[in-house]
Amino acid sequence: MQAQFINPFLNATSNILSTMCQIEARADTPCLKQDQGTWGVVSGLVGMASETLSGNLILSFDQGSILAIVSKMFMEQVTEINNEVIDAVGEITNMVCGGAKRELSETGHKFSMATPIMISGRGVRISQLHKGPVIQIPFEIPGGKFVVETSLNKGPTP
Amino acid sequence: MQAQFINPFLNATSNILSTMCQIEARADTPCLKQDQGTWGVVSGLVGMASETLSGNLILSFDQGSILAIVSKMFMEQVTEINNEVIDAVGEITNMVCGGAKRELSETGHKFSMATPIMISGRGVRISQLHKGPVIQIPFEIPGGKFVVETSLNKGPTP
Repeated sequence: MQAQFINPFLNATSNILSTMCQIEARADTPCLKQDQGTWGVVSGLVGMASETLSGNLILSFDQGSILAIVSKMFMEQVTEINNEVIDAVGEITNMVCGGAKRELSETGHKFSMATPIMISGRGVRISQLHKGPVIQIPFEIPGGKFVVETSLNKGPTP
Repeated sequence: MQAQFINPFLNATSNILSTMCQIEARADTPCLKQDQGTWGVVSGLVGMASETLSGNLILSFDQGSILAIVSKMFMEQVTEINNEVIDAVGEITNMVCGGAKRELSETGHKFSMATPIMISGRGVRISQLHKGPVIQIPFEIPGGKFVVETSLNKGPTP
């Protein structure tokens, strides 16, 4: 995975949270994903595909972070992960992916987005078949943490 | 979702299991997915995307069916869902999607495939943001059951 493919996802995440929820998200240093676990209680996933690129974007939230985000989005205190919250996870993931897609298309890297998927439950393991690296960007906001995982790589699906 | 988009996934599933594992899979009538749960203990997922189509393919296996399939694939009795089994779920999902992609491209419906994702754990809920219908095709093989869920729809991601 090329370094130029990381920043657009980092930027889009910060921008979406800032403009939509007035939340300043603090990004930690991106790193290679080492294990196969997914620590969040709810995750959004979007497949990315073209004839030259393939990968996935996953946003995985702990309970504190997603409740803080949706409370701002819905403009009311949300205290449990219900269907509306799960749909919001899909919407946020979709918007982040759309923002990164726009930035990447300006440098000639084009792809289409699959339909967003939401995955919830504790002890869920999400892994990728692709042998290319998966980059994790840890984020912290007032109330909790979440990670952005991206695996956009050149070449079609193996 | 158009009816013409269902058969290619049904055909590809039967073909892959027949040629790769010598397993005759019996497909039940495809139906609309009504609930949001995913009953399998391990699932494979591939995003599908182009400028005119978007969706996902999910294959979700109960323990009996996936152990029966991988025992044939690996030519040895497999008794637990380990990393090799989870990777095989990704490979099978990838091959089924590739088969359907080829059949659909012959009728002018083209898309690219994202990187396969594998999801495991009990009590996992997998839902889609897309408002279009999700079609479930139940399959039965000697040893267990699995479902193929497909949501390929015209139009870009909402």
